[in-house]
Amino acid sequence: MLRRTDKLQKLLLEKNLGGVLISNFYNILYLTGFKTLAPEEREAFVLLTKNSVYLFTDARYLTKSKNGFLLRLIEPHKRLSQHLEEITKKEKIQRLGFEAEDLKFHEYEAFRKNLKNITLVPTQKIILKTREIKEQEEIKKIRKACEISSRSLQEIVKTINIGQTEKEIAFKLEFWLKEKGYEPAFDPIVAVDGNAAIPHYNVKTGQGKLKKGSVLLIDFGAKYKDYCSDMTRVFFIGRPTDEILNIYKKLLSVQEKTIQEIKKTKELKKIDLFCRKLLTDEQLPNYGHSTGHGVGLEVHENPRISPTSKDERLENQIFTIEPGVYSAGKFGMRIEDTVLVKNGDKPVILTKFTKQPFFLR
Amino acid sequence: MLRRTDKLQKLLLEKNLGGVLISNFYNILYLTGFKTLAPEEREAFVLLTKNSVYLFTDARYLTKSKNGFLLRLIEPHKRLSQHLEEITKKEKIQRLGFEAEDLKFHEYEAFRKNLKNITLVPTQKIILKTREIKEQEEIKKIRKACEISSRSLQEIVKTINIGQTEKEIAFKLEFWLKEKGYEPAFDPIVAVDGNAAIPHYNVKTGQGKLKKGSVLLIDFGAKYKDYCSDMTRVFFIGRPTDEILNIYKKLLSVQEKTIQEIKKTKELKKIDLFCRKLLTDEQLPNYGHSTGHGVGLEVHENPRISPTSKDERLENQIFTIEPGVYSAGKFGMRIEDTVLVKNGDKPVILTKFTKQPFFLR
Repeated sequence: MLRRTDKLQKLLLEKNLGGVLISNFYNILYLTGFKTLAPEEREAFVLLTKNSVYLFTDARYLTKSKNGFLLRLIEPHKRLSQHLEEITKKEKIQRLGFEAEDLKFHEYEAFRKNLKNITLVPTQKIILKTREIKEQEEIKKIRKACEISSRSLQEIVKTINIGQTEKEIAFKLEFWLKEKGYEPAFDPIVAVDGNAAIPHYNVKTGQGKLKKGSVLLIDFGAKYKDYCSDMTRVFFIGRPTDEILNIYKKLLSVQEKTIQEIKKTKELKKIDLFCRKLLTDEQLPNYGHSTGHGVGLEVHENPRISPTSKDERLENQIFTIEPGVYSAGKFGMRIEDTVLVKNGDKPVILTKFTKQPFFLR
Repeated sequence: MLRRTDKLQKLLLEKNLGGVLISNFYNILYLTGFKTLAPEEREAFVLLTKNSVYLFTDARYLTKSKNGFLLRLIEPHKRLSQHLEEITKKEKIQRLGFEAEDLKFHEYEAFRKNLKNITLVPTQKIILKTREIKEQEEIKKIRKACEISSRSLQEIVKTINIGQTEKEIAFKLEFWLKEKGYEPAFDPIVAVDGNAAIPHYNVKTGQGKLKKGSVLLIDFGAKYKDYCSDMTRVFFIGRPTDEILNIYKKLLSVQEKTIQEIKKTKELKKIDLFCRKLLTDEQLPNYGHSTGHGVGLEVHENPRISPTSKDERLENQIFTIEPGVYSAGKFGMRIEDTVLVKNGDKPVILTKFTKQPFFLR
């Protein structure tokens, strides 16, 4: 953790900031190891100054370990603004950075009104950019999360039967994980036939059931020690038509070639375009989502592999490659791996579950 | 839904706004019935003007029903700002409201730069204030969510045994709900003895186990058709000491008196202070959280029952009353009900699970 805050403190000097206020749940977790109960509630902030790291939270978290960071308690009679006022005065901070992609407008306004002698400076993704490059410890955890999700899928596919609902399968995956003390990285997407053509299909409200000849898509991930995995596989219930099988084989070849292209391409947007071009060359339709996204503490994080991405490929990034072929009302196929980027070398596929056509019953 | 947007359109006139941009996931769901996959991803916006309701989302949601609202597709070559520019021009909107408690600073900045001819006007909680007062349809759903959580607790307590871990019990509660097609409203808090003294105890990382003489706290809720319930109950594993039992009985009496006080008190902060005073009168320590919170589409929403709340009691609000007594390292007790407010009449307790001392084995 200290190495991470050191890095950020160097960045403060470069940006001529006296300090930076971190509000994002995952960035706080990344920097300090401190985790509140729910990301959507604002229960902690971190202030990094040139020499110190302050952690602000309330009495409900008093008993949690603070890893040696300076704890300041937020209380009804001492709000965050008052703490900030005191500290910035004491440490003579004039320019204070904040996370523009995270802070709400009304939070910003409150700081602006209450911290009159300080210039608030918006920063963009300063920690998200650091989080892109995974440390060895993080790689280990993501590798383990990928192994766990492969293993759970291995176990659950054995139990899949005609007549089962999407909900049942999603439920089984989730409970396999939770029973063993793991967590799903997100609500699993289990979608059959036409439902799988909806990239953001909601299995909770869906009514799909497995039939003979169905094409089943499962998009899910596990969480291990706060780190995520993300993978998608397609299963055939009985032998599909040659047309369907051919599309699958072509999609697989496109996905594998795209993964191999990573090492040759510096701009990630070119990976995205490369993948789409291969599909077009195979006379397959294009997909309405991006080709991939970073995976780490969040299941969707930097970098982005999309047509408009400005991100570059860097050693030890971990991201997904997930092209798809969708036919409205009929089927959806997507093949997704979580891969670890090695410079000038082949990327390592961390989600090892087979991608060969998989026939169930 | 139309009634809800009508109400908001009237508010536009009052506030001299040509339109208001809604970004919050739950407010969009409330106004239009449209729901994207994950609240934390920005996948939909709503623009309400004097005469129209526009829904902005991307191609992934094309197949979802839009309930008759005007759909505008967000695409790489046509971002939200461009849509807004077009519509505000066409509808001659000069002052455009936005949700200051939801919009991120960088989103605001992008709109400010791209919508040069428009004044962006921050609004605070305009929909959250409406959501405070529940419609009959919403009350039905919350009532059902409360019944479901009472029922699941009924079933699960039967299976509780000495030696079980907190995690196992949390898992069973969740499993019971999901098996029946429901959802937990939040990750259940199951905490034993000293762990229960930590109001935001994280059962996922906890190691607690039931022993003879343990005091067990279960704080959880169910979701039914998007609406939440929230309740906390305390269980005794075997006969507790007289001291513990006495504290429980006093806490219960305080909680029940506070619920009865609701009908007499207009300012909700006075309910909070009333509850704390009763505890003090009983020579019990004060608690470091608020006395209650609204429950609806979100498990924590308006109104707030806290010492600094500015909210008023209004007919058909639904909120919790949840005082607690905590003894660090020893035990934590909290009794929480979800209650429906009736003006001048007794509030209705929706979480009907017994509050009489409950001895297990």
